[in-house]
Amino acid sequence: MKVIQAKDFSLQREETDVYETERAVVKEILARVQAQGDAAVRAYTARFDGVELDDFRIPEALFEQAYAEVGDEFLEALRAAIQNIRRYHEAQKRPSWMLPDEQGSVLGQIIRPLKRVGVYVPGGRAAYPSSVLMNVIPAQVAGVPEIVLVTPPDREGKLNPGVLVAIKELGLAEAYRIGGAQAVGALAYGTETIGAVDKIVGPGNIYVALAKQAVFGQVAIDMIAGPSEILVIADDSADPDYVAADMLSQAEHDPMAAAICVTPSGDLACRVAQSLVEQLEKLPRREIAEESLRNYGSIVVTENLDEAIAVSNRIAPEHLELMIEDATSVLGRIENAGAIFVGRYSSEPVGDYFAGPNHVLPTSGTARFSSPLNVDDFVKKSSVIQYGKQALLENGEKIITLAEAEGLQAHANAIRIRLDKEGGRNQS
Amino acid sequence: MKVIQAKDFSLQREETDVYETERAVVKEILARVQAQGDAAVRAYTARFDGVELDDFRIPEALFEQAYAEVGDEFLEALRAAIQNIRRYHEAQKRPSWMLPDEQGSVLGQIIRPLKRVGVYVPGGRAAYPSSVLMNVIPAQVAGVPEIVLVTPPDREGKLNPGVLVAIKELGLAEAYRIGGAQAVGALAYGTETIGAVDKIVGPGNIYVALAKQAVFGQVAIDMIAGPSEILVIADDSADPDYVAADMLSQAEHDPMAAAICVTPSGDLACRVAQSLVEQLEKLPRREIAEESLRNYGSIVVTENLDEAIAVSNRIAPEHLELMIEDATSVLGRIENAGAIFVGRYSSEPVGDYFAGPNHVLPTSGTARFSSPLNVDDFVKKSSVIQYGKQALLENGEKIITLAEAEGLQAHANAIRIRLDKEGGRNQS
Repeated sequence: MKVIQAKDFSLQREETDVYETERAVVKEILARVQAQGDAAVRAYTARFDGVELDDFRIPEALFEQAYAEVGDEFLEALRAAIQNIRRYHEAQKRPSWMLPDEQGSVLGQIIRPLKRVGVYVPGGRAAYPSSVLMNVIPAQVAGVPEIVLVTPPDREGKLNPGVLVAIKELGLAEAYRIGGAQAVGALAYGTETIGAVDKIVGPGNIYVALAKQAVFGQVAIDMIAGPSEILVIADDSADPDYVAADMLSQAEHDPMAAAICVTPSGDLACRVAQSLVEQLEKLPRREIAEESLRNYGSIVVTENLDEAIAVSNRIAPEHLELMIEDATSVLGRIENAGAIFVGRYSSEPVGDYFAGPNHVLPTSGTARFSSPLNVDDFVKKSSVIQYGKQALLENGEKIITLAEAEGLQAHANAIRIRLDKEGGRNQS
Repeated sequence: MKVIQAKDFSLQREETDVYETERAVVKEILARVQAQGDAAVRAYTARFDGVELDDFRIPEALFEQAYAEVGDEFLEALRAAIQNIRRYHEAQKRPSWMLPDEQGSVLGQIIRPLKRVGVYVPGGRAAYPSSVLMNVIPAQVAGVPEIVLVTPPDREGKLNPGVLVAIKELGLAEAYRIGGAQAVGALAYGTETIGAVDKIVGPGNIYVALAKQAVFGQVAIDMIAGPSEILVIADDSADPDYVAADMLSQAEHDPMAAAICVTPSGDLACRVAQSLVEQLEKLPRREIAEESLRNYGSIVVTENLDEAIAVSNRIAPEHLELMIEDATSVLGRIENAGAIFVGRYSSEPVGDYFAGPNHVLPTSGTARFSSPLNVDDFVKKSSVIQYGKQALLENGEKIITLAEAEGLQAHANAIRIRLDKEGGRNQS
């Protein structure tokens, strides 16, 4: 853990796009899935997941077993989270609208849900029920009628019980136990049993990420998440134990994760550093967290709060916590951040699991131009132009002028032929 | 021009992604611009555009000259178009919002404009003033404070007067006469004189498109446009000359453009075919339009209107015209289309230039999952979580349960440490 001055601070991670081999593997898998459909998916599932499946669909028995395993406390917490996440995303919905004018025209914008969306949920140790909620609920709120979930099975064909219960609680009718690049291929191209989708979302390992990149264009995809960050702006009013605990909740994810505290208080900086050491002791995932802190952890001491905010805006963190006095008053000065956690009770895990906003956030500085996963990601818009006769007669010549200025005579003709026939030529 | 049955119809264009050489050229240009900044841009401008520039900024004298050249009629038409486009895009704006609850929490979403956006405008014969309007106005309406426009000069360093006047009318303070991959590189990486942007939008040739793809991730980009389509659904109430004229306005763009009429009326099909032949005769861009019609033009005869709509939904056209009786009543059944032109007066060029909606539309079937360029493309969202003390005390255990179910103990700790200190442990 470094304690450094603001002017010396930048967050540089090693470039890691060196996946030539993986890219070739993915290309081959996708080509075979496109050509051979189910047979290819079945073969790759046997090879990579170690299980032979006749039917990809997750059997009812597995769901029933999962409910027995998870316990009431989990179920109650999950249901509360679903309700909160749904409520927040409902507030993102927008209606289609129109703009009528006095010349008889009606302009508008129709907003419709995508028709069919695929959600990828990782398996193994990265099988997170919260991923199911955060990726599926915005699509449901958008009104997507067909949501299909894929998730890789273990060697016995089993799945994480929390993930299974989440699938059931959300009422998903279509869920398959397949994973990897072969699952992405099945979603993008369709197979005999799995219909092709319009968009694929959800996290995955490098093969999944490369497969999503490769099918982009054929279908839409969400962003490819990079390593994750938390940046805490804190002052003397902050509890150093809270700051340290929240930093560790990021650091335990991944050795590439970055946990950064930016503070004008040298005293707080020392106390956070001390608390980090103490809390680190007891962590089950201590090794990961330690490596993350060693590589990318920082406590940055600034001249004042203004400089702290400037550092944060430069980093454009995925998660930003404001543990300062009168935190709300600086919201308008935060230029770039995926999610902003305001005040001492707003610990990052509150947002990761429960409060309602999405935990799929722009990473690695992309908050400069990207947004949290949201309902808009699952809709498409169409412009509507219902031009009135009067509008055409009054404006036709102007449109012709603009078309001719661009040398596009057939464009001009399409207007002229109407002006001639509708009698506008003489009136305009 | 083929007249065919609906069941046999699909729109297949040749795959054209064979740009290995161009990709290598672009990679080299980008690397050099990143390393050498202005010097590289200056050298490439000399090499590719044939002009030596000391200062990239477009000189005032060129603007003044342009105003003298374009004439009053053009200026008046352009100003009316600007007003319309601005009015339509204003209707797309959304406020930040919040969602307070009874437990003392406030959730919200802050919507902010991107800080700095680059707009590419092609030069030469494809220098279209309308491109300036359609790409710049949504960014202005979104509130982007820094918009920088680049457009390549001719061998005398000159620019299209219509483009220049459009730049001035929109009040753009920063405009450079550079183009190609070197301009994209300058926008993405920044140089001594041109600051790096957060997003690059606007059409361009294959070098520009490949350069945008290459810098994607470093900055955001708009979609890479493919060949363009118009699909006209028409019945016996349609004027065949209008249908043909509108098809030709698409066909004259590009030999790869597709103009399709879908109709349940065999009679109309014949009359449209005949009108196409007649109107084609007189077109200055006849060769391009003829090649487009030969390759990708079709008149599809369907059993009935339902089948016509189904064909259109399958194609997901960039432009869809509904020249049928009671056209408004089928709007709800159009699943996929970039822009929908309703009724006999709503000719495609009305939308290309003037009515207000954007002419940057999803091409090649991507209307399945993409939208017209719009104000949302120039904003970013941040989630806000200001969690209340009572909310944390009441829900803390649930959050811990979810975190522990995922094996993320540091996440659980960040909540537990607060419950312990704030006294919630005993109350929950």
